[in-house]
Amino acid sequence: MRYDETDTRGVHAVGVTDLTWAVGGRSRVAPMRVTTLHGPRDIRLQDGPEPTVEVPTDALVRVVASCICGSDLWPYRGEDDFTDGGTIGHESVGVVEELGSEVSGFSVGDFVVVPFCHCDNTCPVCAAGMQSACQNLGFTETGQSEYVRVTQAGGSLVRTPEHPDASRLPALLALSDVMATGWHAAVSAGVTKGSSAVVVGDGAVGLCGVLAAREMGAERIIAMSRHEPRQAVARQFGATHVIEQRGKEGTAAVRELTDGIGADAVLECVGTHDAMRTAVSSARPGGGVGFVGVPHGVEIPVRSMFGRNVALQGGVAPVRKYLPELMERVLSGSLDPSPVFDLTLPLEDVAEGYRAMDERRAIKVLLEP
Amino acid sequence: MRYDETDTRGVHAVGVTDLTWAVGGRSRVAPMRVTTLHGPRDIRLQDGPEPTVEVPTDALVRVVASCICGSDLWPYRGEDDFTDGGTIGHESVGVVEELGSEVSGFSVGDFVVVPFCHCDNTCPVCAAGMQSACQNLGFTETGQSEYVRVTQAGGSLVRTPEHPDASRLPALLALSDVMATGWHAAVSAGVTKGSSAVVVGDGAVGLCGVLAAREMGAERIIAMSRHEPRQAVARQFGATHVIEQRGKEGTAAVRELTDGIGADAVLECVGTHDAMRTAVSSARPGGGVGFVGVPHGVEIPVRSMFGRNVALQGGVAPVRKYLPELMERVLSGSLDPSPVFDLTLPLEDVAEGYRAMDERRAIKVLLEP
Repeated sequence: MRYDETDTRGVHAVGVTDLTWAVGGRSRVAPMRVTTLHGPRDIRLQDGPEPTVEVPTDALVRVVASCICGSDLWPYRGEDDFTDGGTIGHESVGVVEELGSEVSGFSVGDFVVVPFCHCDNTCPVCAAGMQSACQNLGFTETGQSEYVRVTQAGGSLVRTPEHPDASRLPALLALSDVMATGWHAAVSAGVTKGSSAVVVGDGAVGLCGVLAAREMGAERIIAMSRHEPRQAVARQFGATHVIEQRGKEGTAAVRELTDGIGADAVLECVGTHDAMRTAVSSARPGGGVGFVGVPHGVEIPVRSMFGRNVALQGGVAPVRKYLPELMERVLSGSLDPSPVFDLTLPLEDVAEGYRAMDERRAIKVLLEP
Repeated sequence: MRYDETDTRGVHAVGVTDLTWAVGGRSRVAPMRVTTLHGPRDIRLQDGPEPTVEVPTDALVRVVASCICGSDLWPYRGEDDFTDGGTIGHESVGVVEELGSEVSGFSVGDFVVVPFCHCDNTCPVCAAGMQSACQNLGFTETGQSEYVRVTQAGGSLVRTPEHPDASRLPALLALSDVMATGWHAAVSAGVTKGSSAVVVGDGAVGLCGVLAAREMGAERIIAMSRHEPRQAVARQFGATHVIEQRGKEGTAAVRELTDGIGADAVLECVGTHDAMRTAVSSARPGGGVGFVGVPHGVEIPVRSMFGRNVALQGGVAPVRKYLPELMERVLSGSLDPSPVFDLTLPLEDVAEGYRAMDERRAIKVLLEP
């Protein structure tokens, strides 16, 4: 799947795989359980065909843990288009089950983090550091299932030096998207040592953005949240202040904490028009907004940006770029995003997982096949 | 004049000064000749009151040279609101005539460059490096005249070590806006040594953007222009390629010159919707667009930016920030933006100057009082 510049439908490849695709003409068609979406709030775990190594650059990974993403809620709520009966889910870690003949550097049995966006890691775009727009871009299409086909596997996957302790699984799983995306928000916003940072959005990505800002040395980290359990995680992750106000009042509260001028860096981790407006107006003149929420109905306030020289940067996170460093931090114990997972369910309860996130009973749900 | 975040009318303070303002109650009301706008394409040179030192932080500068800005053409053509009979013009160099009691570091008789936007250079916003959004922001309001009132003069003005040779006047004049604005476009786009840069817009700002990109070490500099005399200046300033195509064809031509992926940095020096679209689509994934044309009807293609992680940054140039360095380069002879001035007229011919620029007979007109 190539990423078209005017089309972000493929960002998380929601519902793009019709389960009939693998039937007939394939060398190997085994059944597996896979999560599918059939209509607003109609999530099912079905028997479907196991993915296969289709081209020599593919790998097949057996899922050890997967999870539900905030972005999965857009189609779940009927706010994004989806294919009826299509698969959903794009975050997973697991063990290499099979390797295409051109995949080097990996062995069957390796434990790997699967970035939700796959890349060859060698094309000119990847070389320029934007692996999420790789010229051979692919996406995880059956994340909430038992097996995942990884395209451009040699470029995409990152393995752990040895099989990790079970206690590290949630943190490693977070690296397949949510933590890398929060990291990307902080990088895109221009967080630096000693800077002030605001995080708009208290979903799992926003919380990981708080954690990223702390790791990058931000001195003042302001989380915007009015949800007590999320505020607690934000503080645990390094937020120095929590603001409950929204809109203009939220911006005023931010300015009160930032010399009256706004923050050096703002992480926009929602994707709505209101969130973007709050983000732009919370940045100081010359500050930056890093945005990672897939934009839904967002109109950029270009005159406000121009008048105050607020920078705007972001998009689909180049997970593969950050993965080696983030994995090192997780394995050394210095970075632990696992508190974003506050509910663990067996894969067969995936529908309940969606309900829990939709109703904000859970921040993020981990699924065990 | 404070800069409101939703209002860019003050960007170049066009037509904001009613000439009756200084009559009555002032300590000093002398006549001077000043350029005013009375309707679309109705420019007049009138007798008006000479500005005065109104508060202790002001200075009065006698204009030695001024010029017409591409942005002056918006109200000239009736495409921006203006006050009937209001003054126009904001670029000038000159000699300090009078200093308010709180202005230190300058003497009457100093030769100074007057940044079009005035700043105290000490407030938290200036300290953060965005002098064009200073908490005590002001603008040159009678640039095309004989005298200019400079607010926050101690923070705004930069003087030359000695009175410059007449041959340096045009280059120094360019630092009051056009060269500093082109520089800001390159900084905002993220031009670095060895990078590829595209410049959208072949007005004087765009041409100065080419020059800035060369000074910053860009290896490949692609100027978009279909106007032969401007192409010549672009090449003289360091453009390695000139592209005559526009829109999608222009983008395709850029990609052909940039590994098929687009440029590292794009300078948007026009301010129209089409120019912005071309700029965003000409940047490579992860590249940057620096925009300095006051946006007119621009809608930001946010999904395209998101999908390709194209950064967008820019706005009113913090001239004062760049001025010392740029002045040093000009005085040493290493930087010479003076070729953007291809027509010099006496101030009394200012109306002809506007016509020449409006009809693209001149790139930029220098006015001698």
